[in-house]
Amino acid sequence: MKHYSLIILGMAISATLMAQSPSAYNISGKSSPQVNPDKTVTFNFSAPSASKVIVNLGKDYEMTKDEKGVWSVTTEPQVEGFHYYAIKLGDLSVADPSTYTFFGCGRYSSAIEVPESEEDASYYTPKQGVPQGAVRSVKFYSEACKEWERMLVYTPAGYEQDSDRRYPVLYLQHGGGEDETGWIYQGFADVILDNLIAEGKAEPMIIVMNSGNVSDFDRMITEDVIPLVDSRYRTIADRKHRAVAGLSWGAKQAYDLGLGYPQYFASMAGFSGIIVIGEFNHSNPGFRDPKMFKEAYNGIFSNARKFNKETDLLFIANGEAEGNHLAEMSKLLKRRGIRNTFYQSPKTAHEWLTWRRCLYNYAQLLFKED
Amino acid sequence: MKHYSLIILGMAISATLMAQSPSAYNISGKSSPQVNPDKTVTFNFSAPSASKVIVNLGKDYEMTKDEKGVWSVTTEPQVEGFHYYAIKLGDLSVADPSTYTFFGCGRYSSAIEVPESEEDASYYTPKQGVPQGAVRSVKFYSEACKEWERMLVYTPAGYEQDSDRRYPVLYLQHGGGEDETGWIYQGFADVILDNLIAEGKAEPMIIVMNSGNVSDFDRMITEDVIPLVDSRYRTIADRKHRAVAGLSWGAKQAYDLGLGYPQYFASMAGFSGIIVIGEFNHSNPGFRDPKMFKEAYNGIFSNARKFNKETDLLFIANGEAEGNHLAEMSKLLKRRGIRNTFYQSPKTAHEWLTWRRCLYNYAQLLFKED
Repeated sequence: MKHYSLIILGMAISATLMAQSPSAYNISGKSSPQVNPDKTVTFNFSAPSASKVIVNLGKDYEMTKDEKGVWSVTTEPQVEGFHYYAIKLGDLSVADPSTYTFFGCGRYSSAIEVPESEEDASYYTPKQGVPQGAVRSVKFYSEACKEWERMLVYTPAGYEQDSDRRYPVLYLQHGGGEDETGWIYQGFADVILDNLIAEGKAEPMIIVMNSGNVSDFDRMITEDVIPLVDSRYRTIADRKHRAVAGLSWGAKQAYDLGLGYPQYFASMAGFSGIIVIGEFNHSNPGFRDPKMFKEAYNGIFSNARKFNKETDLLFIANGEAEGNHLAEMSKLLKRRGIRNTFYQSPKTAHEWLTWRRCLYNYAQLLFKED
Repeated sequence: MKHYSLIILGMAISATLMAQSPSAYNISGKSSPQVNPDKTVTFNFSAPSASKVIVNLGKDYEMTKDEKGVWSVTTEPQVEGFHYYAIKLGDLSVADPSTYTFFGCGRYSSAIEVPESEEDASYYTPKQGVPQGAVRSVKFYSEACKEWERMLVYTPAGYEQDSDRRYPVLYLQHGGGEDETGWIYQGFADVILDNLIAEGKAEPMIIVMNSGNVSDFDRMITEDVIPLVDSRYRTIADRKHRAVAGLSWGAKQAYDLGLGYPQYFASMAGFSGIIVIGEFNHSNPGFRDPKMFKEAYNGIFSNARKFNKETDLLFIANGEAEGNHLAEMSKLLKRRGIRNTFYQSPKTAHEWLTWRRCLYNYAQLLFKED
């Protein structure tokens, strides 16, 4: 059954706040977990009658109980960025009652943010004086999926006041086990765009985020969502002003839409995800087979000149720690004459810090054609 | 520390879906809890190594473990409506990993909705063909509270498309232990208004929901929120088109604003909360003291004719099972010449079914003066 019942929309944590303990994701007044200056994390909570309590933060950390029945543990130093964690009581894994929860791993999960430096985190930190956009929760009945769905729609600062201006639209997809809330809640997409637009580094744009966990994603977007968005919001309703991007599993969905339905999209991007041709495999065998490559997506790659003429931006990105398979895919495309832009996030892995940086870099190139 | 990190926006569950098991608040694919046709609720989950597991749904229900280590229990029949519950493992009380969570009781809590009949639930059930409004998440820096806050702003269907029309505004407050998400997420305020407006039973209005858990609520609303809302949204920015309402603890906040700042509000309502004059007490001693009564709120009740002339709607409501103290308060106000409207929700207690009905009845009377 679809969970009609909620939408989570996020707001960014300032790096300063994140640098403090308790963790900025704690419910107001809760002291655990604490992210310490040395990037270790201290967890504690009261469970006098429990016989064994473990915190799973990437790996298991067994907690120890004091005479008052308060369990605690301090982890090793953690990598900077966003990390899910769970409390394990025997074989039962639960969210920490002290924290806000994020939809990831197919459930509501607790999380910590191990802060970067204020400078590094600045681009996803809300700032006084920077005009704020808004994120709408919009429900709609999908004829393609035959059920109620919900999407999040970011409109940039000024959208409410200037009733004439029209905007390009980025369709932005989450990863596996997450939902349409991920880009706002874990990714701070709204704050990243607020900041970029205020600095004049990105075109003011609308961002539409949908759940990829539906029965007919391509038809839902092309037949239900795009017509609704173009009728309800002040969009520039043509392919040149419509882009699609996604992360991980969402990257495949974005490529399937952008390459499969070029009549709708002139730009497409995949963060931490390959263009899947034939069998899914990081060595990308179908992609490397010239015949399969030319035939894929209705032959869109078969005429490089035509592709380059009609495609404004093919953007490919991942994290350095994810390896080089996407750098190689970008090079192979270029060798075959397919223009594309590659970005690699220094040091980061298959995680939200990578994807925040991907969006930050991608958004600065998007809709700059005219 | 304020939890900047999220906003939860809700969408209503259709009564039909709620009538099915599993519970409509479960994460997609999760089978527990199940709300059964006889209104009993069956919980089960796997925790082979746990020695004792209890579900607290109003009262404790001890679960029993089968040979596979799956704990289960079926409760007595439950009252219709929204109920929080918790899983108790020894002395640790946690949210159920199978469900969405609601901010209530000062934490993220699991909940079930025991469905009313489709007919009774119709007014808070989304319907195909009914134009949908949208709920915005808007962050702002409060000078009054010296911190970032967030508010939810409901705009009615048509707001996006008709760029000239201006709307009255209802400021709507949650109860104790909840936050600004409660009215959407537990209360379905957006769906209630969508349906009422579509039927022509309520004036199209904007609803602004803020957190009451702040250091200076009155100044935040009057000095930060109202100017922001009137500048960013197409409001009719005068007291005749501005109302304030709240539930329980939020009723006190609504009366404090509506009666304390009549220059901003011509209408005020309290659901399941008294007008507190002097000591807080359901027998309302300060309220019953004629001198204290006349002096309260800068003497707003001291001139009944003036109050009735300047106040468009004073609305008082609660649930039948909460008792008669608010009916008595309404009568006492009337005996003192203070015009007011009283509504009592049949059979319901201090709970969301009461407050959904209060909003449904209140919204039909609001902004009908011109």
